[in-house]
Amino acid sequence: MVEKKLKSKDEILRERILSGADRLFQKYGLSKTTVEDIAREAGKGKSTLYYYFKSKEEIFDVIIQNEKKLFFEILQESVSKAPTAKEKLHVFIITRFTRLKELTNLYNVMIDEVKEALDGCVTLRYRKQYEQKEANIVKSIFQYGIVTGEFRVFSDEDLDLMAFCFMSSQHGLEIDMIIHNKLDEMLSRLNFLMSLLIDGIKK
Amino acid sequence: MVEKKLKSKDEILRERILSGADRLFQKYGLSKTTVEDIAREAGKGKSTLYYYFKSKEEIFDVIIQNEKKLFFEILQESVSKAPTAKEKLHVFIITRFTRLKELTNLYNVMIDEVKEALDGCVTLRYRKQYEQKEANIVKSIFQYGIVTGEFRVFSDEDLDLMAFCFMSSQHGLEIDMIIHNKLDEMLSRLNFLMSLLIDGIKK
Repeated sequence: MVEKKLKSKDEILRERILSGADRLFQKYGLSKTTVEDIAREAGKGKSTLYYYFKSKEEIFDVIIQNEKKLFFEILQESVSKAPTAKEKLHVFIITRFTRLKELTNLYNVMIDEVKEALDGCVTLRYRKQYEQKEANIVKSIFQYGIVTGEFRVFSDEDLDLMAFCFMSSQHGLEIDMIIHNKLDEMLSRLNFLMSLLIDGIKK
Repeated sequence: MVEKKLKSKDEILRERILSGADRLFQKYGLSKTTVEDIAREAGKGKSTLYYYFKSKEEIFDVIIQNEKKLFFEILQESVSKAPTAKEKLHVFIITRFTRLKELTNLYNVMIDEVKEALDGCVTLRYRKQYEQKEANIVKSIFQYGIVTGEFRVFSDEDLDLMAFCFMSSQHGLEIDMIIHNKLDEMLSRLNFLMSLLIDGIKK
């Protein structure tokens, strides 16, 4: 049986367009890359390109789907190799983060988009004003808990880190609940997440 | 000594403009409320309004600052009344959430802005595709940890909740690190937050 099928001329050209577009997207991002750029990079005309893909968005989509497939294969494999559940979770976090960074298209677009989307936000300005105040309250509660013996002893640096993490995990939950239109479940989920975190701090 | 100073005509009118604008912002939001609307609500002309405030943004700003001041007073007071650090943290979370919802201007604008900002995001579409896959991996690790005896036993519903919280707290950290331009510290903070969470799950 034939292990590797010979690639057709169509397949070869399709892949050449995809890898060229990949380079351009990584360098210039989705919005600054044009169909003309992608055609030129593949050494073809625009009409040839349109024979294979409807739009640059479709090309981007195919690239992202490929990146994602690879991402999940690597993630699953790393997790399955770790012996304990705790190690599996740590491997999951590290692999997810480092591989996501390597999947440059998705990652770069994500960061650019978040930055752009938040740049125009009026509330972000207000949030920046009060989030330090909130973190200070949380930090002083942690300090109180250390004094009363409820919590383990942490360094001042770790307390800052904990206060930041405590707040940013709440922000993440809030945004995800907004995205998924589940605002009514927000408080119960917040309580659940925070109970886990507090259990993680206690003596 | 006089406890309450009599309000000047200027102060009375200023407050009337603010409370009228407050009603309009709560009902229609910042972008749909015009200076004309605010003047009409106060029973005055536009020129009178401009004598007191530069723009509707300035009015909004004053309202938000007042809401915020009240918010922190209530937050501090509730926290100080709770006897233990653990209870203080829970009071902080609940009071922060419920009061933030009552501070309708800031809260409504925040939710509208997040929705609007994220609506146009290409990556949100991709994220929705892979976030369920990620949550499934995390859930299966939790289940593994319960079987091996590393983690406490949780119901299937709680496992779903935990997987969601586990991921959304990572998203929150990611977004906050993007906002604060601290991408290079992301992995160490992710590890820190996740270690706390994992400690909260263990037996």
